[in-house]
Amino acid sequence: MEAIRRATAQAHPNIAFIKYWGNRDDQLRLPANPSLSMNLGALRTITTVTFLEEEGPDALILNGSPVEGPARDRVEAFLHHVRGMAGFRGRAVVESNTDIPAGVGLASSAAAFAALAVAAAAALGMDLSERELSILARLGSGSACRSMPPGFVEWVAGDRHEDSYAYSIAPPEHWALWDVIAILSEQHKAVGSSEGHRRAATSPLHALRVATAPERVARCREAIWRRDFEALAEIVETDAIWMHAVMMTSRPPLFYWEPATITVLQAVRRWRDEGLPVAFTLDAGPNVHVLCPMEVADEVARRLQRVPGVRRVLASGPGGGACRIPRS
Amino acid sequence: MEAIRRATAQAHPNIAFIKYWGNRDDQLRLPANPSLSMNLGALRTITTVTFLEEEGPDALILNGSPVEGPARDRVEAFLHHVRGMAGFRGRAVVESNTDIPAGVGLASSAAAFAALAVAAAAALGMDLSERELSILARLGSGSACRSMPPGFVEWVAGDRHEDSYAYSIAPPEHWALWDVIAILSEQHKAVGSSEGHRRAATSPLHALRVATAPERVARCREAIWRRDFEALAEIVETDAIWMHAVMMTSRPPLFYWEPATITVLQAVRRWRDEGLPVAFTLDAGPNVHVLCPMEVADEVARRLQRVPGVRRVLASGPGGGACRIPRS
Repeated sequence: MEAIRRATAQAHPNIAFIKYWGNRDDQLRLPANPSLSMNLGALRTITTVTFLEEEGPDALILNGSPVEGPARDRVEAFLHHVRGMAGFRGRAVVESNTDIPAGVGLASSAAAFAALAVAAAAALGMDLSERELSILARLGSGSACRSMPPGFVEWVAGDRHEDSYAYSIAPPEHWALWDVIAILSEQHKAVGSSEGHRRAATSPLHALRVATAPERVARCREAIWRRDFEALAEIVETDAIWMHAVMMTSRPPLFYWEPATITVLQAVRRWRDEGLPVAFTLDAGPNVHVLCPMEVADEVARRLQRVPGVRRVLASGPGGGACRIPRS
Repeated sequence: MEAIRRATAQAHPNIAFIKYWGNRDDQLRLPANPSLSMNLGALRTITTVTFLEEEGPDALILNGSPVEGPARDRVEAFLHHVRGMAGFRGRAVVESNTDIPAGVGLASSAAAFAALAVAAAAALGMDLSERELSILARLGSGSACRSMPPGFVEWVAGDRHEDSYAYSIAPPEHWALWDVIAILSEQHKAVGSSEGHRRAATSPLHALRVATAPERVARCREAIWRRDFEALAEIVETDAIWMHAVMMTSRPPLFYWEPATITVLQAVRRWRDEGLPVAFTLDAGPNVHVLCPMEVADEVARRLQRVPGVRRVLASGPGGGACRIPRS
């Protein structure tokens, strides 16, 4: 009797402190610059992959509903890589459950492809290292490589497929840093990140952002190691504004900010002026991520809930890496 | 009987297409980069300067009310230059009337010091060329030099006092380009431009903005000469976003945008996608200047009036240079 080719894995999304925007190779998702992030422990995606003997189209079931179209195609293209590595040809059934709202700039694809990489590799009996898994996950979604290692994570840009991977610079328990997320919109983005990455190089602000990213990554890493919130705040806010300036000056331009984005940014700056340790960052979407020490996270969440235009507030501390778990 | 030392002059504010932000010399207001603007004919400042024989503090009467404090001090410091050039020591009474709302990023100081330079020089019988007057006005407010020549104006950055001046690249009648201004706030700015200029160099995005400004000025000049609205739109929007990105990444950061700023930017982009020739720019304030050909200016004004958060709409075509006028 043959063993069932099935495995389940979980992964967290991550919030980038130094952003990934633009590729040096769109196909391989080799990033233009290194980046640095924190996994968000309070949000996760759990994915079970079952490989069948028969060939044919893969099936994707997301939160209980079958999914067709580009999302399924992207999973299938990713699984072709895994099958190629394992020398297996059968189709897969992927069942994924997540509490991450999709398409609002919360990096749902990062957790999705990190969990999928772990589950698919395990289901096919492949024995891959964390580094190899992060390289694999990157093929599905660039920032997925950062959801593979635990805690605070740096993605080494690399210039070849096998050199572009993520590693942990500090475990989750190193620093009780919270991300309090002000959700302003639950609509899907008009322009997705993959298209956005392709446009990055059309901005006159892109090349310098890329050239100076290693320096910002180094300063951010240092701030995390020292748990220096003020240094972190400065570098994180600068990098986020710079990425959005690249987006807004791309051709055609990408505007992700909503009016309420400004309302929240103004509030965060006012609170910091009043002495509350808070810093903002924004991914490719209108939501504002407010970083703060755990001690003030409840207070920050309460305040954000009262800001006009904020629909929902999520909060999370640092999370672990992607890992295999028992099937529920 | 001695002639009365008195003269009246008018000047228009200007809207920069390629922005002035940051100085290479704060005292002399030598700008970090060249810039390019259009005078706004529909708004103006009319200033009468009367020099008296007696020495003592200068008086400033703005829209009928005596003004004390930093605004008066700035006028007095400027008039000291003029008195030094003319070899005259008596105090001045400056009466200025303007229809430009102050402190909302509409460059009221540009028109103010352009008119003051012309009136003061004339009152003291100085025979200065347009170029010399633009150099003089620059000492009062950097962008005032651009309100001196007529129409579409370039400010040559220069590296010495006498080389930093503005000249007309095209007269007002060259192109019926309209600036339809969405006024979002009539509050005074929390941080004025002079302080903002000092902070510019603290932004990591500043040096490249400065280094590439001559290229943008050249492309903008070319677009104006060819009356190429599309080329103008692209370069003007990029430069404005870049300046605000510099502001937002300065230490301490400068955020001039309001929630309604984003509402208007989104509307402008939507209208352009629908085929309406519109482009935005923003000075050091939350208001959005919507550039468009004269033919659609009424339509643009009507639409802006319906955008939530817009308090008032002003519209202007190209204006002439600063000039002496009869006392009213």
